[in-house]
Amino acid sequence: MTNGMGRDSRKELEIYKKKKYITQAKMIDISTGNKIVVLNDKEALVNDIFEGERVEIDIKGKIHIVLVNLSHSLVKEGEIGIYADISKDFGIAEGDIIEVSHIQTPQSLETIIKKINGQPTNKDEIQSVISDLMANRLSESEISAWMTSSFIRGLNDEEIVSLTEAMVGSGQLLNLGKSPIVDKHCVGGVSGNRTTMVLVPIIASAGIYIPKSSSRAITSPSGTADTMEILAPVNIEMDELRELVKKTFGAIVWGGGINIAPADDKMIKLRRPLRLDPKGILLASILAKKKAVGSQYVLIDIPIGMSAKIGDMATAQDLAKDFKTIGQKLGMNIGCVVTNGSEPIGNGMGPVLEAKDVLSVLHGEGPTDLKEKSLLLAGKIFELCGKVGKDEGYDVAKHFLESGKALDKMKEIIAAQGGNPNVKIDDLPTAKYRYSVKAIADGKIEHIDNKSISRIARATGAPIDKAAGVYLFKSKGDLVKAGDIIFDLHAESEANIDFALKMAEEFNPINMGKMLIDEF
Amino acid sequence: MTNGMGRDSRKELEIYKKKKYITQAKMIDISTGNKIVVLNDKEALVNDIFEGERVEIDIKGKIHIVLVNLSHSLVKEGEIGIYADISKDFGIAEGDIIEVSHIQTPQSLETIIKKINGQPTNKDEIQSVISDLMANRLSESEISAWMTSSFIRGLNDEEIVSLTEAMVGSGQLLNLGKSPIVDKHCVGGVSGNRTTMVLVPIIASAGIYIPKSSSRAITSPSGTADTMEILAPVNIEMDELRELVKKTFGAIVWGGGINIAPADDKMIKLRRPLRLDPKGILLASILAKKKAVGSQYVLIDIPIGMSAKIGDMATAQDLAKDFKTIGQKLGMNIGCVVTNGSEPIGNGMGPVLEAKDVLSVLHGEGPTDLKEKSLLLAGKIFELCGKVGKDEGYDVAKHFLESGKALDKMKEIIAAQGGNPNVKIDDLPTAKYRYSVKAIADGKIEHIDNKSISRIARATGAPIDKAAGVYLFKSKGDLVKAGDIIFDLHAESEANIDFALKMAEEFNPINMGKMLIDEF
Repeated sequence: MTNGMGRDSRKELEIYKKKKYITQAKMIDISTGNKIVVLNDKEALVNDIFEGERVEIDIKGKIHIVLVNLSHSLVKEGEIGIYADISKDFGIAEGDIIEVSHIQTPQSLETIIKKINGQPTNKDEIQSVISDLMANRLSESEISAWMTSSFIRGLNDEEIVSLTEAMVGSGQLLNLGKSPIVDKHCVGGVSGNRTTMVLVPIIASAGIYIPKSSSRAITSPSGTADTMEILAPVNIEMDELRELVKKTFGAIVWGGGINIAPADDKMIKLRRPLRLDPKGILLASILAKKKAVGSQYVLIDIPIGMSAKIGDMATAQDLAKDFKTIGQKLGMNIGCVVTNGSEPIGNGMGPVLEAKDVLSVLHGEGPTDLKEKSLLLAGKIFELCGKVGKDEGYDVAKHFLESGKALDKMKEIIAAQGGNPNVKIDDLPTAKYRYSVKAIADGKIEHIDNKSISRIARATGAPIDKAAGVYLFKSKGDLVKAGDIIFDLHAESEANIDFALKMAEEFNPINMGKMLIDEF
Repeated sequence: MTNGMGRDSRKELEIYKKKKYITQAKMIDISTGNKIVVLNDKEALVNDIFEGERVEIDIKGKIHIVLVNLSHSLVKEGEIGIYADISKDFGIAEGDIIEVSHIQTPQSLETIIKKINGQPTNKDEIQSVISDLMANRLSESEISAWMTSSFIRGLNDEEIVSLTEAMVGSGQLLNLGKSPIVDKHCVGGVSGNRTTMVLVPIIASAGIYIPKSSSRAITSPSGTADTMEILAPVNIEMDELRELVKKTFGAIVWGGGINIAPADDKMIKLRRPLRLDPKGILLASILAKKKAVGSQYVLIDIPIGMSAKIGDMATAQDLAKDFKTIGQKLGMNIGCVVTNGSEPIGNGMGPVLEAKDVLSVLHGEGPTDLKEKSLLLAGKIFELCGKVGKDEGYDVAKHFLESGKALDKMKEIIAAQGGNPNVKIDDLPTAKYRYSVKAIADGKIEHIDNKSISRIARATGAPIDKAAGVYLFKSKGDLVKAGDIIFDLHAESEANIDFALKMAEEFNPINMGKMLIDEF
């Protein structure tokens, strides 16, 4: 049996396309998170348009592809229901004239089918997948089929490079016109770990460009963008960022605000519930965001540990090799460090609590692990971009931190982004409720679980409640006595304290006195 | 790098599940073709629920899984927007109390991940995929990932058998308690081809049970169910069908009405746009519908031809072998015939035009090809179930047709299903407009393209306009003179005649006087 694929229905659809009909916009205050319109059911039937299909809509000559919902009476014949998100994204107002027609089969479907069948795909074909993805021409199940087959069949180096370039092209570019530009990325999985906010001012204070785009929390109690936002606005547009970095050398902004590699964000949305991370797509996803801001030197931090994303050294080494190979083909010089990801870095988990740690380190105090890791990474970046010799980076980074130059630079960056440069740790808000979790027996801390700590911190209300979160007082290896405070819960309501406590009981994030067997 | 899969987030979600909130139903007259509710955006955010996620809703103790849309003002805090299809399917009325909570990660996600990773899956795991599919616990992209990986990795015989059984279990069973029960399935791709409506009365008139479930048109101008509906109601419930078949031996009903193997329909909806037909899923899909009505002997008609679904003999033979192997494991005796699918069977394409052909054949007249193919298939069914010896079937079938017994049986079936048994061909409606397409030169007809003829017939308005369609006057091999009528277009509007003519010009469905090179 043939697999049923490859039948060319494009010709048919081109003919069908001649069937068009005119509607007028009717606003519907619902946001679907998707590009959908509502058509009158009878009118759709007559025009051979079905629920869940995609159609083309033409608004003043601009064509968009949207999904179809149907309504029997809310949307009447001659009307088209426009949801809130579409109205905003496409600039549609009540009563606007909209022409509805069938879509052509997207060209990229053939590319997806090629990948399903195990054939390699070329640059143009990969570009068509990303273009059609961005134009909403592919359904979720089609994109999922592409990602699933990319996972099973694999992507070769050329495909990953093409994919990265297509992702870069899907959004804006920084085009700073300066050099050297450096960047840093952490593969993730470690709680706290706000090294970016310490190392960016260190690097920038040395006159090296580091226009850092960061993400908001997805499953963690705070992303770097959320933590930075405690000190300064992070939703900054590309043009503004360009001017800003030319002056300050460094910035820490939200990646969503500058619209870099948005194709990637669309894919992440589908990959997340499926937990489907094809290696090639993952590499492209990370490197596209670096390439879009023009990074020439990129340090990749790969934490390993039982509760980190990467569990063992062999996997970390493979990943590092791939980053370096693909990076080189993209014209980026990539360095990788494998770091200790066995416990949280810093004491606070949650936007405000993390911001306090960062300010504290910049003032020469604060958690030692956060300070040391930041210096290590900053030092490696100095070495990577050739500003200092091998093994000299750490000391140089330490100089910029301890001399107060990094703090001054951070104040400059905060001011440039629109925050208060003279903010003190004590100025930052505190949550209404606090609860201390204490050791019930003497012992030695054997393991602090990143995932569990993150979940507990989220249960307190972070990142929505800025000042909520977990504050850790102990590290791995510490000897504790019964009654010692292990961590504090901060929350804006007693209910959230209770909820976080229930999670803490369930997950038992801190193991004492025995070798832990991984239960995940 | 690990592929990121296998992280167990179930525990986390079980905890989150404790977070519930109460809402009251607010009706929204939109039909989405999906199970979706609308939550207030602020309330959703506070409860950690995001656009496009799935949540559990509890209505008077009944739990359903639904997708989330958000609204800023149409749906207020404390409200939940209920779309028309959900309101109907779940029986929700304005003001009903509905509890909203997080869902648990469906167990079947692990099975999907196993299949993606190329591991075989067992009976229970496949059952969990189908159960979760039916309960709406899997997203479209998750189901797509399962189908894509089933296509790439393949399903072994045991998996196909388990899948078939799970599909059977997803719906109702006929449980006729009689024997023998026979059935017939056509792999498809041939226009017209309404053999079912001729052979069912032939078989039933010989005292053999044939409770035939048929489909409505998807991409064709008429399905068997649409054509039968011209003569009698086909939307019959399972209990009614059971009683009916006990009396008449035969019936021709719409499969959707008796709710057999509904899991399959859900999958077809996703497979169709992707043109993704994993062989194993296709086999299970067909055989589940036979098994659900208790068929013991099933004849599979595999038409081959340039414009049919199956293009060559080798593919047809492979398919036949698979049908027989899987059928045996499911306790069904399967026979396969490879038939000539190189041109349409019968003259009419469209519900009424096809029904006329069928009545005509039952009255001893009508298109020869439809009559001969029906006799061939009926004969094979007689042989398959052991009622007659090898090569005796055709003559027996011919006897039942020519003696008028099949016509009497058809009248009995029409009456039993609620139609008028004495309907005459001339009683059937005719379309308002007719246009004759004539030969522009002398020649010999070399090829009549099934797909093109189907598209042209759809363009006339069929199957929505019952009497619309194409009526063919010529067959492959016929000599025609300039001015001879090749086919008539029937339509309810001049616009539809024009539209069908444009399609005919574009597709040139009938090739004359030269060897055709397949352009599809």
